Amino acid sequence: MAELVAKTAKESFDASQLLDSSERHKALIALKEALTVSKDAILKANALDIEAAKEQVAAGKMSSTLLKRLDLLSSADKYDSMLQGILDVDSLDDPTGKVTYAKKLDEGLELHRVTCPIGVLLVIFEARPEVIVNITALAIKSGNAAILKGGKESLHTQNILSEVIQGALATTALPPAYIQTVSSRSEIASLLSQDRYIDLVIPRGSNALVRSIQNDSRIPVMGHADGICAVYVDESAVEQKAIKVVLDSKTTYPSACNSAETLLIHDSLLTTVWPKLAAALLAASITLKCCPSTLAALPSSPSISSTLPSGESQLIPVSPEDYDTEFLELVLAVKAVPSLSDAMEHINNHSSHHTDCIVTENDAHAKAFCKGIDSAGVYVNASTRFADGFRYGFGTEVGVSTGKTHARGPVGLEGLVIYKYQVRSTGAEGHGTAEFGSGAGQRAYLHTDLPLGAAPF
Amino acid sequence: MAELVAKTAKESFDASQLLDSSERHKALIALKEALTVSKDAILKANALDIEAAKEQVAAGKMSSTLLKRLDLLSSADKYDSMLQGILDVDSLDDPTGKVTYAKKLDEGLELHRVTCPIGVLLVIFEARPEVIVNITALAIKSGNAAILKGGKESLHTQNILSEVIQGALATTALPPAYIQTVSSRSEIASLLSQDRYIDLVIPRGSNALVRSIQNDSRIPVMGHADGICAVYVDESAVEQKAIKVVLDSKTTYPSACNSAETLLIHDSLLTTVWPKLAAALLAASITLKCCPSTLAALPSSPSISSTLPSGESQLIPVSPEDYDTEFLELVLAVKAVPSLSDAMEHINNHSSHHTDCIVTENDAHAKAFCKGIDSAGVYVNASTRFADGFRYGFGTEVGVSTGKTHARGPVGLEGLVIYKYQVRSTGAEGHGTAEFGSGAGQRAYLHTDLPLGAAPF
Repeated sequence: MAELVAKTAKESFDASQLLDSSERHKALIALKEALTVSKDAILKANALDIEAAKEQVAAGKMSSTLLKRLDLLSSADKYDSMLQGILDVDSLDDPTGKVTYAKKLDEGLELHRVTCPIGVLLVIFEARPEVIVNITALAIKSGNAAILKGGKESLHTQNILSEVIQGALATTALPPAYIQTVSSRSEIASLLSQDRYIDLVIPRGSNALVRSIQNDSRIPVMGHADGICAVYVDESAVEQKAIKVVLDSKTTYPSACNSAETLLIHDSLLTTVWPKLAAALLAASITLKCCPSTLAALPSSPSISSTLPSGESQLIPVSPEDYDTEFLELVLAVKAVPSLSDAMEHINNHSSHHTDCIVTENDAHAKAFCKGIDSAGVYVNASTRFADGFRYGFGTEVGVSTGKTHARGPVGLEGLVIYKYQVRSTGAEGHGTAEFGSGAGQRAYLHTDLPLGAAPF
Repeated sequence: MAELVAKTAKESFDASQLLDSSERHKALIALKEALTVSKDAILKANALDIEAAKEQVAAGKMSSTLLKRLDLLSSADKYDSMLQGILDVDSLDDPTGKVTYAKKLDEGLELHRVTCPIGVLLVIFEARPEVIVNITALAIKSGNAAILKGGKESLHTQNILSEVIQGALATTALPPAYIQTVSSRSEIASLLSQDRYIDLVIPRGSNALVRSIQNDSRIPVMGHADGICAVYVDESAVEQKAIKVVLDSKTTYPSACNSAETLLIHDSLLTTVWPKLAAALLAASITLKCCPSTLAALPSSPSISSTLPSGESQLIPVSPEDYDTEFLELVLAVKAVPSLSDAMEHINNHSSHHTDCIVTENDAHAKAFCKGIDSAGVYVNASTRFADGFRYGFGTEVGVSTGKTHARGPVGLEGLVIYKYQVRSTGAEGHGTAEFGSGAGQRAYLHTDLPLGAAPF
C-alpha cells in the first residue's frame, strides 16, 4: 500500500514535469475555489473531529492544546486565512526555472544549471488540518508531488480536505495523485522506507515525532527536533538592550522553537546588569533555573518578587540537563560564564544549532560570535524570535531546518527546489569529450560566462 | 575511539571558525611544502604498499586495477600533479563568506545570509592514496574539518601522508586535528554513528561501499552508487551526431560513472541509422546486448563484424537486468522504443539519475527531454562524459551526487558549504519582535533589498 502510494506519487511527479508552470498557478486557483465551495461541508467534518476530541479531553486522554490545534471553527477568520494563504503562496516568485550557473564550454556547447523541483515530498504532521492545505499549496507552487500524513485526531477533516483537493486537481492539468493523503499511522514506517520514490521527508510536529523519523529513514529529512536557543549577555552589554532582547526572546511565544531556553551572562555583570535583568524576567512570570553564581548574586531584596501567584518559587537551582532542555514554557536556564569563549563553547555544545544571540556593544565580540557559533541563526542585539520565514521576507516557510546540508534555518520555497545541469550542443556534429585536452589537435574548454537569464528550456 | 576522533574533529572545526580565511591559504602552502620535502620518504612508503600488493595480485587476491590505483611511483609526474593540485585548489574562489540574501528588516535591523563551511566531513575512499591530499586541500579551502578513511592496501602511504599533513598543520594557525586519518576498517561503522559530530559523509569508491554507507548512516551522504547513463537517439536524430555522441559516451573511459550503459533508439531508425550506428559501435569493440527488435534489424552482412578477437560474439540478446546494470566496460544495453515518452519513461525508471542524453534535431523533443528527465544532467546532442566538475568549470570536484537535495551532479567547492543567517541590530535599544505586527503602535517589516556585497562580519 505505502509502496503504491509512493510509486504513484513519483509517476505523478514525472508526468507533471512536462507542464508549463502556468498550470501550477491554475491549480492553486482551482484549489482555492474548491475549498471556498466546500467550506460548509469541511467545517461540518471538522465539528465531528472536535466533538470526538472534546470527549478525549474530558476523559483526560488529550491535551486541550491539541484540541485547539484541530479546530478550524472557533476563530471566525481561520478558514478564510487558510484560503488567503493559497493566494499568498500563488503570488510568490516561482522558485523553479532559475539559471544559477551558466558557462559556454565551447563554441556551440552551453551549460546551464537550472533550478527544478526536488520530486516527491513526504510531509508528516500532527493535528492541525490546515497544514494539509498549506503544504498542498507549497508543493504545487514549487512543482513537487506530495504525500501528506496527518494525525488521526483530525481524520474527518483530513478525509474531506483530501477529497476536495483531489477533486480540484482533477479539473486541472496536474495528475490527480499529485497530492495524496494517507491516514493510517502504520503506514509511516513503510513510507519512510520508500527511498526509491520519495526524495525528502518534512516532519512537522513534536520532538519525539521528528527524532523518530530522523532515526528511521534513509530519505533526507528536513526539519528540527529541538529548538534550544541561547542569549549571551556579554561584558559590554547595555542593560536596556539585554532586558529587551531576553524578554522578547523568552516571552513572546514560549512554545515556539525560536524562543530562548538558555541565558548566559558574563561574570562581570553579576552585580550590575543581572539583578535588574532578573527582576524584569521574574516580573514577566519566568521561572529562572540558576547556576550557583547567578543565584547567589540576586539580592534578597523585597523589590524582587520571586514567587508565582501559585506560590511556587521562580528561583530554582539549575540541574545540568536543564541546559539541554527545550522548556517550551516560561522557564529559563541561567548560567554565568567567565568569557565570550566560554559562552561560545557552551552554546556550540548545548544549543540545537537553531538560533543564538549575543547582546554586546563590542564589535569584535559580535564578529567572533557570528563566526564561531555553529548555528543557523547568529544574532547581535536582536531577539531570537526573528528566526522565521515570514520575518526573513520569504512570504511563507516550509519549516525550520537545523540540518547542515541543503537548507538551514527558516526554509522558504527555495528549500523545496534543487537544480539540474542542462548541456546542449548546437554544433553541426554534436559534441564529444575526445576533442578536448592538451594533446595534438585537441582544444581547451572556454568556460566563459553566459547570462543568468531564463533557462534555454 | 571513533567518538573521540569525531569529537576532536568537531572541536577543531569550532576553533577554526574564528580564523581569517587567509590562514587557510597559508595552510595549503605549508601542506604543499611539507609534501615536497617529504617526497622521498612518502614514495618509499608507497613502494612497501606496492610490494605487498604485488604479492596479493600474484596470489590472485587483488586486482591489477587496484594495484595501479595504489601506485604513486610508476608515472613520473603523478606525485607532482598531486602537489600542483593543492595550488590549483588554493587558487579557486573562496566559497565561504559570500552573501546570498540580504534584507533590511527594519531601520537598524539587517539580515544577511552568508555562506559558511558545513562542519566535519567524513570521507571514505578505497585505495588511491593521493585522495588524502586532494580531500585535505578541498577541506582546508572550504573551511571544513575532515576525517579520512582510506583502504588498508595503502596503509604505509596513508600513515606517512597523515604524519606529514599533521606536521604541516602544526606550523599553521589551523588546529592539528583539523585533518585526521583513521585506518581500521572496523571504525567505519562507529564513525557513521557519530551524527552528533559529523555533518556529511562523502564515500568515494565502489557501488557496494557507497550503498552500504547510505544504508548505515543517519548522517547525510553525498555521492553516487551507480552511474547508469542513457543516450536516446530520437526519430529526428542525425546519423553522424548519433554515432559521435554514443561512441564518445561509451568509449572514452568505460569505467567512469558518466559513461553510457544504455542506448535507446527510436523504432523508425531501425533500418536507417541503427545499422550504421551498430557497425561503428561494434568496430569500437563494444558488445551490444540487444532487444529483439534491434537485434533483428541488424543485417547479417559481412560489412558488420560482430566478433571480438577473442572469438566472443559482440551481439547478445539483452536480459531485463541489463537495463539496470552499470557495466563499467565496453558493453552497452540496447533497446528500441516507439516514442520519446517511452524513452523518457524507461530512463526515469532505470537510470541512476546521473546524466542522460537525447540526440535529436527536434527542439520540442529536446525541451521535453530536459524538463521531463529527472536526472542531474540532461543533455542534448552532447556526450554524457561532459558530466564532470572540471569540464563544468568548477576547477575540481568533490564527487558526483545523484541525490536530490543539497548538491546534484558534479560537486565543486560550493557543495562543501552551507550558510547561516546573521541578524544584527544597530538600534539604540536592540530589536524585539513584539514591535512588529498589524496592531496599534506596531510596525511592518521593511524587507528591502540590501547589496549582496561582503558579509558584515
